[in-house]
Formats: sequence, structure tokens, C-alpha cells
Amino acid sequence: MLAKNSSVGLFDLDFTSPSTNIILGLQDTKPTEDKGLIPPKIHGLKYMSIVYYSGDYATPLRGADISNALIELFAITRWENLDYLILDMPPGISDATLDLMRLIKRIKFLIVTTPSQLAFETAKKLTSLLTQQNIPIIGIIENMKTNKSQNIKNQTKTLNLKYLGQTTYDPQIEQALGNPTKLLNTKLGQETQRITTKIQHTRTRK
Amino acid sequence: MLAKNSSVGLFDLDFTSPSTNIILGLQDTKPTEDKGLIPPKIHGLKYMSIVYYSGDYATPLRGADISNALIELFAITRWENLDYLILDMPPGISDATLDLMRLIKRIKFLIVTTPSQLAFETAKKLTSLLTQQNIPIIGIIENMKTNKSQNIKNQTKTLNLKYLGQTTYDPQIEQALGNPTKLLNTKLGQETQRITTKIQHTRTRK
Repeated sequence: MLAKNSSVGLFDLDFTSPSTNIILGLQDTKPTEDKGLIPPKIHGLKYMSIVYYSGDYATPLRGADISNALIELFAITRWENLDYLILDMPPGISDATLDLMRLIKRIKFLIVTTPSQLAFETAKKLTSLLTQQNIPIIGIIENMKTNKSQNIKNQTKTLNLKYLGQTTYDPQIEQALGNPTKLLNTKLGQETQRITTKIQHTRTRK
Repeated sequence: MLAKNSSVGLFDLDFTSPSTNIILGLQDTKPTEDKGLIPPKIHGLKYMSIVYYSGDYATPLRGADISNALIELFAITRWENLDYLILDMPPGISDATLDLMRLIKRIKFLIVTTPSQLAFETAKKLTSLLTQQNIPIIGIIENMKTNKSQNIKNQTKTLNLKYLGQTTYDPQIEQALGNPTKLLNTKLGQETQRITTKIQHTRTRK
């Protein structure tokens, strides 16, 4: 999706509620073990997730265990040459988020909010935390949009962040879950591709 | 909201993204210190939250620190006589959730999902974890409903859980945030009150 001619990795780090496996329609695929873990290619993405190891069970890992699991998976995964590595994080400001801020030197954040002020308050807190630490923020995407309210767009400007665009809330998307080709052809898919192109041509503020 | 003639406490334990303070319109109110913390009464609720101590800043507490903060706040809060203590948890299966399962003997879970299969997968995992530990589940509420799909309702039955009802996604709710009286008069408020009444008359499966 991000840059059709690029090599892209996706690492689902949402230990509290992983979902990219359902979106991508992951079946019985597993990483190959060969001097580390080689992530399988799913629809062109090199894909890693905690679900490879937890399956359908809950993952009751605690704070320090999560950090350790995350660091170990990072250390042993052989991404090889990538243009982009996308890390899917838990909602809010989680332990995993704080770990990444500390561990990955070249990290940049892409903040996704809903149109609700409740979600945006967390986006504001995260922005404040990242700014304190001089971590670059690519911008903000407003997801699950149902009306034309400019509220989040206006507030994004006051934070001195780039408003990258919005994606529409479409309950019909459920029928396309697990089928990336179908997903890309939905309204959400089209909007996301537009935003992706925009991101590639955006210089990140620091 | 829950049981008009009952004494109810609300403890926002969502360290990753607290929001009940915005919903209730919390201003400069703080707990009183007197042999512990006495939670202020906000619209009839005895209200405690991490935001009393973090304000508008992010709360970059780590796993063990979160557990400790949570245990300390529990230990020193003087709820006095309550009929219900409602604990608002982070999304997914978090550290705080696992702490509560371990620490609170009489806990019961009320699971809130969205109509999306992505959210329901987490509800399923949580159900499996709670069932293993013999922790009672009151039932499942389907929030942010936009159509008449029976998908979540049907799946709830296969989990042998009670489907307590659904609440409609209404972007207009934003205008009522911070004003509980106004919130109770919205469609969401009315639906929630109906579900609350149902819960009071429901025997919990264990």
C-alpha cells in the first residue's frame, strides 16, 4: 500500500489487541527460522506479529515481559533491506510505545485519531511527549470520519502538526476484512492510498 | 446512571488514554486528603482518575510502575459504602486488566465491543482468559452501532455470553461531552440507561 515499488515491512506490536492479521487474512503462515526469523511475505508485505506465537489465545504478558518479547522479536527478525518498516502500536500511550521511543533511533510517528475529542486528547498528549523528546511526527490522520466537521483539522494546526487527511467510517469494510485486494478498492482503501502518497512527498517536521 | 438510588464509584484506570474526565466535564476538582483520598462527587458519582495527578500531560508510567500506582490508588482511596464500583479499563487486554483479575476478588467484567470483527476478536480472547480463571462476565455491549447487523449478537451467543444490547454511533454526542445531564438525554444516554436497568436484573453467569 505504501509505495508500490518499495520494500515494506509491517510489525504488529499491539499486544493488547492485534488486528492486522485479520485485516490481511493471515492463515497458517509462520516465519521461517534461519539464523533468526524470516517474516513471511503477505500481499507483498514482510509481516511479523505476536499472533504467530499466541494464536487465538490472549497474550497475558506483563510490562517487563512485553518489553523483553518486543526487544527479542526485533533483534531476531531478519527484515533485510526495507524502505519502510511500519510498526502498528496499541491505542493510547502504552509501554510498547515508550519502549520504541527509547529503542529505535530513526523512529517517526504517524498519529491516527478518530473525530472524537476523547481520542484527540490522547493524540495531544502523545504529541507533547514526542516533542519533548525531539521525536519526529509525520502528521495526523483522522479516521472513522462520518461528517464534515473541521474540529480535528483545526486543532491539528494549533499543535503545529500536519493534517494528512481523513478516512471515512464505512461499516461495509467488514465484508472486505481478510482480503487486501478488496480492501484497497473500498473507499477507505482509496483514501488511504491518497494519504500514503502525500506522506511520501512530505518532509517530516522535527 | 447505574441505579439512580445507589451509591456508585467510578475509577478511570485507563492509563493509556483516560477519557471519563472529559465526558464528565471534570474541572479543577481534586480528591480531598484525609487519612487517604476522598474522591470528589461529580454528578452523583464518587470519581477517581489518574488524571488528577497527571493533568494534561502524558503519563509515561511503565508496566511495574502502573501496577504500583494502581495498587496504591486502590489502597488509599476511601470509597466508603458503595453499591457499585465501576472500573474503566484500557482497550484490549492490558497490564491493568491482568492486575485487576489478580487483585480484586469480587470483580465482574462487562465487555464493550464495537460492531467490528477486529474489536470482537479481542472480546473473544478476553472471554477465554476470564473463563479460564473463573471470573464472572456480566455480558457484552455492542457500542458504535451504525446498522442492523446481527453478527456480533450471534457470535456473543456462541460464546455463551449474554448480549446486553447495543448503543448507536452518534457523532452529535461530541456536543454533549462534559455535560452529563445533556449526555443522558442523547440517544446513547437513553440506550445506556436501558442496558443499565437490564444489567441490574441480570444474574451473572460464572
